Amino acid sequence: MFEEFLSNERWWLTVKGPEAKIIISSRLRLARNIEDFPFPSRATRSQKKEILERLENLWSKVEILKLGFFVRMDEVSFLDRQFLLERHLISQEHINNPQGKGLIVSLDERISIMINEEDHLRIQVLTSGFNLEETWEIINKVDNAISRFLPYAFLPEIGYLTACPTNVGTALRASCMLHLPGLVLTKRIGKILELLAKLSFTTRGLFGEGTQALGNFFQISNQVSLGISEEEIIDNLCGVVKQIRDQEESARNLLLRRHKPSLEDSIWRALGILRNARLITTKEALSHLSLLYLGVDLGIIKGIKREVINNLFIVIQPAHLQKMEGKALGDQERDYKRAALLRSKLK
Amino acid sequence: MFEEFLSNERWWLTVKGPEAKIIISSRLRLARNIEDFPFPSRATRSQKKEILERLENLWSKVEILKLGFFVRMDEVSFLDRQFLLERHLISQEHINNPQGKGLIVSLDERISIMINEEDHLRIQVLTSGFNLEETWEIINKVDNAISRFLPYAFLPEIGYLTACPTNVGTALRASCMLHLPGLVLTKRIGKILELLAKLSFTTRGLFGEGTQALGNFFQISNQVSLGISEEEIIDNLCGVVKQIRDQEESARNLLLRRHKPSLEDSIWRALGILRNARLITTKEALSHLSLLYLGVDLGIIKGIKREVINNLFIVIQPAHLQKMEGKALGDQERDYKRAALLRSKLK
Repeated sequence: MFEEFLSNERWWLTVKGPEAKIIISSRLRLARNIEDFPFPSRATRSQKKEILERLENLWSKVEILKLGFFVRMDEVSFLDRQFLLERHLISQEHINNPQGKGLIVSLDERISIMINEEDHLRIQVLTSGFNLEETWEIINKVDNAISRFLPYAFLPEIGYLTACPTNVGTALRASCMLHLPGLVLTKRIGKILELLAKLSFTTRGLFGEGTQALGNFFQISNQVSLGISEEEIIDNLCGVVKQIRDQEESARNLLLRRHKPSLEDSIWRALGILRNARLITTKEALSHLSLLYLGVDLGIIKGIKREVINNLFIVIQPAHLQKMEGKALGDQERDYKRAALLRSKLK
Repeated sequence: MFEEFLSNERWWLTVKGPEAKIIISSRLRLARNIEDFPFPSRATRSQKKEILERLENLWSKVEILKLGFFVRMDEVSFLDRQFLLERHLISQEHINNPQGKGLIVSLDERISIMINEEDHLRIQVLTSGFNLEETWEIINKVDNAISRFLPYAFLPEIGYLTACPTNVGTALRASCMLHLPGLVLTKRIGKILELLAKLSFTTRGLFGEGTQALGNFFQISNQVSLGISEEEIIDNLCGVVKQIRDQEESARNLLLRRHKPSLEDSIWRALGILRNARLITTKEALSHLSLLYLGVDLGIIKGIKREVINNLFIVIQPAHLQKMEGKALGDQERDYKRAALLRSKLK
């Protein structure tokens, strides 16, 4: 299942979006619930089944979604669920407790809808670069199209109702994934994360909630969804993301001016290890790939395409390696295949 | 001074000697003192001067020595003294207190004589591989030739007299330099070093007394020089060196049988770093070169000649880098030049 995705040029990783050097991707997520149904945590098995069926029907009628997949998570293998997580299409919760849960995903993977996760619907649109406006247009279209078939739980004076009170109101979460090796290397990242928290922004790692900032990736998103409009949420995020991008650029300039030899050393060593290792973990590979990416950005490394590195960030992950091999692999086998893949792609 | 040595194919590093894979070099050292002169630590300035003069005269008359150098250490710059230490031709003591001290060294660097170190004469012969017999023949020739011109301090019932009682008797120290990455990687080295100490052998690092086992090199030598003959000293060393060589070979076989992926990984990473780093310390470079050397021994790395690596063990050192550049270099400059040299030699 999902073998098509393996050859997908993951749109949000193609670096074709605007300013995609530092701002890798933009993401919007809407939480929606269906009127007269309890939230998934309180819904009965048959109520969840009914919701899934309604969405299965709806899926084939909505133009923007119909080229893609509708799947029941309990019919998807554990490996495939892991694979979907690695592609940022589902959450850990969707892997661990697949019963009664579902997923709709467009063929280009830009649009995905988790069904019966925390809310009945979690609509996500993910695009390349600093691209919140276009992302907003797309998610609006999807939302409107669905609302024609499903009555949403909505109160005019509050907004959309959600399982968790922190999402009530717009139920919108907007985020950008930023690659910030400059701020990490100059040790300025700590203060910036502190400041973001004070400004009510949330920071996460490459793989969502609870993950570390692997590979110097930071996902920055709004915390507040109630009492402000969707446009304000997006504008606020845009403002803060631009400031961080400027900070990252100034950190990179500082590194080039004051620490060029050690910067070049770190970047070339990263490439040396990626091109030579015979065993490598995901975590180690991500940290070297991050430096390599920085090296390409700064013109220190030439002849390696940014989209090759971007793609590696995703395909070196455990489930991807196993999908490519077509079988389950033990820890050392994965480290071995991962190293071989990195060598062949970075020749 | 000594610029000729820079282009010398350091004989004991050419790997042309027997069994030079694991047993890199063989070394004999004789301590000799001149009758009716106090040991250097108690000799006056003018007595040391006289000894130096006698050796200067003698040097040009001894066939085996005369193509080479006779130098007074206080006429040699600090950098050049450091350079001679790095080539295993003098001791730290000869660097720190050069007054009244001298050195004779043959053009091929196999024969060297420190003058007025702990003893009046410290005659050293250093050859490639497991080669104690030939080394013994050479040092005997040198010793006999000198004794024709200088009366040695010698008592028939004791043997040669030396400044330190541990050297009295034969005044012979025999040693082999072994490259033991297999025993280090399999963590067997500790027990072997303990056993060697019990058997009255001394173990030192690549750069003599007090140095760590950098680059997995271990110099093993006899402790006892009194009460046994020169032949017994050499035979005992040969016996123990053969046993350690066998242990090293069995450790390498174990690594290949049981840990091949991680062994190959370590070796290829070492090469990756050596070929890509822009800044590297001597210590780090030695540890990677050791693994690379092992990789060549085991046929994992092809196309890199053993003598290239052997030569790098010596020329990446601080004084060598500065001699090659023809000027003093700061720490980071040396790390930078060292990395550049490694990249160019290991292309």
